[in-house]
Amino acid sequence: MTSLPAPREPLRRVAVIGGTHGNEMCGVHLARHWLKAPGELQRASFSAMPVLANPAATAACRRYMDRDLNRTFTLTFLRSEATPDDPYEVTRARELNQLLGPKGTDQAFDFILDLHNTTANTGVCIISESPYTVFNLHLCHYLQMQNPDLPCRFLEYETSQNETYSLESVSKNGIALEIGPQPQGVLRADLFSQVRALVMSILDFIELFNQGKAFPAFEMEGYRKLGAVDFPRTSDGGLAGTVHPRLQDHDFEPLRPGDPIFKLFSGEDVLYEGDSIVYPVFVNEAAYYEKHVAFLKSEKIQISVPALPGLTSSPTVAS
Amino acid sequence: MTSLPAPREPLRRVAVIGGTHGNEMCGVHLARHWLKAPGELQRASFSAMPVLANPAATAACRRYMDRDLNRTFTLTFLRSEATPDDPYEVTRARELNQLLGPKGTDQAFDFILDLHNTTANTGVCIISESPYTVFNLHLCHYLQMQNPDLPCRFLEYETSQNETYSLESVSKNGIALEIGPQPQGVLRADLFSQVRALVMSILDFIELFNQGKAFPAFEMEGYRKLGAVDFPRTSDGGLAGTVHPRLQDHDFEPLRPGDPIFKLFSGEDVLYEGDSIVYPVFVNEAAYYEKHVAFLKSEKIQISVPALPGLTSSPTVAS
Repeated sequence: MTSLPAPREPLRRVAVIGGTHGNEMCGVHLARHWLKAPGELQRASFSAMPVLANPAATAACRRYMDRDLNRTFTLTFLRSEATPDDPYEVTRARELNQLLGPKGTDQAFDFILDLHNTTANTGVCIISESPYTVFNLHLCHYLQMQNPDLPCRFLEYETSQNETYSLESVSKNGIALEIGPQPQGVLRADLFSQVRALVMSILDFIELFNQGKAFPAFEMEGYRKLGAVDFPRTSDGGLAGTVHPRLQDHDFEPLRPGDPIFKLFSGEDVLYEGDSIVYPVFVNEAAYYEKHVAFLKSEKIQISVPALPGLTSSPTVAS
Repeated sequence: MTSLPAPREPLRRVAVIGGTHGNEMCGVHLARHWLKAPGELQRASFSAMPVLANPAATAACRRYMDRDLNRTFTLTFLRSEATPDDPYEVTRARELNQLLGPKGTDQAFDFILDLHNTTANTGVCIISESPYTVFNLHLCHYLQMQNPDLPCRFLEYETSQNETYSLESVSKNGIALEIGPQPQGVLRADLFSQVRALVMSILDFIELFNQGKAFPAFEMEGYRKLGAVDFPRTSDGGLAGTVHPRLQDHDFEPLRPGDPIFKLFSGEDVLYEGDSIVYPVFVNEAAYYEKHVAFLKSEKIQISVPALPGLTSSPTVAS
């Protein structure tokens, strides 16, 4: 796992974002709440800024209006000339890039925490496509230590070959926090409380880092995305079946060659034909039907995480 | 409970309908499947017709395009003059009224079975607003006998004072079959199989009735809708909290005065202030947020169902 050095300055410009997808209700309602009552987002060395990323989709309780906002933060979109016919989310991505970026510049925010829900039974999942992997791995480890009863998994999402497109890619560092299962358009009190507590822990971790605390090296398990598997389809592109009951709700559990993955409407089972064990993630996520994804395949990886050194630029050390 | 006499003729014109709400996936995919392969819908005395009620909303995977189709089958809408500016669902309701009605006439279909999903933990629920309550109660009882392990509850939905507005009100008799929990936009194989098996049982029951079988009187429990309870709101109309964890997923279980119903974002609990036990239904249903409904209150009722006499118009009896 390649990674850039950890940040060498305190993270002072931090954003906590909900409603990047307008029907993922934990982030939507936490952002709305914090916009009115931001006290919970204050720490000694910084105050995180709450942002409601997609107000139009949130008002309509839809994932997006014209296109998926969280696939729109490429430099191609952000640097293209604005026109009156731009999709709503392209316009909104440029606005957010002005607020939180510009992407790839020194002016960009230090950290974006983007809050998501999934209909899949993922539990808590930290998704990182940031080059600052070491910092994010320590953050995930801190959450695991703080919440020993809550599965909190680390998913390395994209390879370095692709241009990053997610909202958190606008900042110097960031993560997406996924939690599920929660239906689109529904706010469950249990998940709302969990996400809120996790955000508090994440801000606490950033505060400890800003105060100069060092974090020792450790070993952890993680998951690395390998690819996607589509639903079985009819000749006209419709569904010919859906996720098999033995795979449904079993995110992050081993899927072995020969295990059933789909139940066809004809009654037959479709078996997994790979040649090694994989770990399905986002199994039967509502928003992925249109992306032709029934589930993602991931591999389990062992990660040797180096120490996160304490910041040495504090006045006491520098004097 | 008032009810009209049971039907005195065989039910030969029967429709099985999915996609009245375009993101309730069991009905959507069963209707699509049966439109290609209708064999399962054939019985000796009739062949049920599969219908995809809202093709545009189904294609968009939304509940509706312009307005809730299942609130649009009033005579006011159905008889109003068509204009180019009509909402999509008003136009579609008139088309379905031509296909399956006209509502309130002798030409109307004998029975409509409308398939729905809910994000609430209702299990299987038969909703009847039809005057032919006795027939529908016998149908529900038959499903309970056929599926002893599957809770199958009967909910009397509307009082006779209101103008009926649902799709099944277009036919002479009908029910809505609700099953949950299932997120909007997700097709779970377990629920898909349950709904399919229930539809088979319902068609079997109609076939038995058509063949002249009589069904004896019995006693059963049911639920009668009393009213709706909105979410707690802020002064600007936004949510101030959501369904309490102790109520979430507890549809059809007794709610006592003093029990918690909402958890406010401030951390406080809101308690139920009624003066008698009620039975919440459709607890935290995604589609009801915009209708200002956090859950419906119902009362449990004991129903003495009279015998459903066998049809006497068959040639052997008449001779």
